[in-house]
Amino acid sequence: MQSGNIYDFKVEPQDVDFALRARLAAMCGNILNIAGQDAHRNGFGTDAVMKQNNSWVLSRLAIEFDYLPKQYDAYKIRTWIVDSGRIISVRNFVLSDAAGGVFGRVTSQWCMINLETRRPCDLTPVLDACRQYVFDEEAPCEAPRKLAAVEAEATTEHRVVYSDIDFNRHVNTLRYIEMMVDTLPIEVLAEPHAIRLDIHFVKESRYGQTLTIGSRHEADCWLFEIKDNDGAVICRATFEFR
Amino acid sequence: MQSGNIYDFKVEPQDVDFALRARLAAMCGNILNIAGQDAHRNGFGTDAVMKQNNSWVLSRLAIEFDYLPKQYDAYKIRTWIVDSGRIISVRNFVLSDAAGGVFGRVTSQWCMINLETRRPCDLTPVLDACRQYVFDEEAPCEAPRKLAAVEAEATTEHRVVYSDIDFNRHVNTLRYIEMMVDTLPIEVLAEPHAIRLDIHFVKESRYGQTLTIGSRHEADCWLFEIKDNDGAVICRATFEFR
Repeated sequence: MQSGNIYDFKVEPQDVDFALRARLAAMCGNILNIAGQDAHRNGFGTDAVMKQNNSWVLSRLAIEFDYLPKQYDAYKIRTWIVDSGRIISVRNFVLSDAAGGVFGRVTSQWCMINLETRRPCDLTPVLDACRQYVFDEEAPCEAPRKLAAVEAEATTEHRVVYSDIDFNRHVNTLRYIEMMVDTLPIEVLAEPHAIRLDIHFVKESRYGQTLTIGSRHEADCWLFEIKDNDGAVICRATFEFR
Repeated sequence: MQSGNIYDFKVEPQDVDFALRARLAAMCGNILNIAGQDAHRNGFGTDAVMKQNNSWVLSRLAIEFDYLPKQYDAYKIRTWIVDSGRIISVRNFVLSDAAGGVFGRVTSQWCMINLETRRPCDLTPVLDACRQYVFDEEAPCEAPRKLAAVEAEATTEHRVVYSDIDFNRHVNTLRYIEMMVDTLPIEVLAEPHAIRLDIHFVKESRYGQTLTIGSRHEADCWLFEIKDNDGAVICRATFEFR
């Protein structure tokens, strides 16, 4: 028996780019939404943990796509969580096409923070209450890589607006992905590629801040570092196109 | 019997803002996605008309919400099209809550354009082929209002990026709505309001253009006019908060 739960998807017109291929941010959106839905179904969703004034926040993410599917392609997302200690909850995902072929692999690390202190909570009681949903199947891809500071060769700015902010009152993950993707050369985005994306979230950013998106191109990789107006690192990411 | 088809929704965590209410753009997204899905189901979706190298584009839109629903609220969208001539197809929507109470009313006007010439096509053959899906129930709210030129008292700029562009190779409707909403005072967005939104799309905008979002505040209304870098009007809108 396979670990976890399986969810059915189709690449909808709103998910595709000008080449009628799913946008990376749209696929990440579905993956993260399924994390929320699956946790909700298993009793430890944001709605449940918010009753203790806590919320789930994404800490690190690694995503590999062999390709991005086309408009109206059907696919499945299978997801499960593994036991990974007091502070980090690991959730994995495998994406497969209509014929069962795997084309996407994701591993993600989450913290539960207290909404007042914004500090991480001990996950032990949460995991103890849902042992039947914890599996020992290993991650389908390499864990999120360590990402060093980026010496930027180009920068753009982004003022954080209402539409960037989510239920956690901070900038949503997809918005960071879009900020970075939108600085890539359009030729790179127009070509089909296999891609690996590593993201490490360091600090939250809030409404009204001005973010600086620094980037650097090295061979097949684009390295990013987003900072706030005090120069504090908000997140780092590497996009690797193969 | 009621006109059209009914679709079930729930306000998902990804749809809400910091106040845990559905964002206007997220609701518009679901409404426009249902337009696409319903047309697809009835055989005249974007995928079908693209075979003749045509595509549907939104021309005018009027939306009224008595309130924006909260996270996890269930709601229904009923939608139908009416006969409205050779160039404009009118699609209406009614949104109702779990108890059946109507809280949203939408009427939208669409053109079919040829993707090569970007000019409108004659809709007669399309409508003739789907007479059984055309109803004569009147629009649930006042038709999109005429919107005059706006003498802007404030402007912001937006460079059109990859993530703004949709399958029609132009800036997506939701992005325009976000560009405008994101200039509104956060106090207005934080308060529950009834809202009416009228939008009139005049010209497409494309990747790499720099748009100027001009706005003007008059009593309960915010008036917008978005122009491209040649000064051509892209769209006009009025947000009325009650």
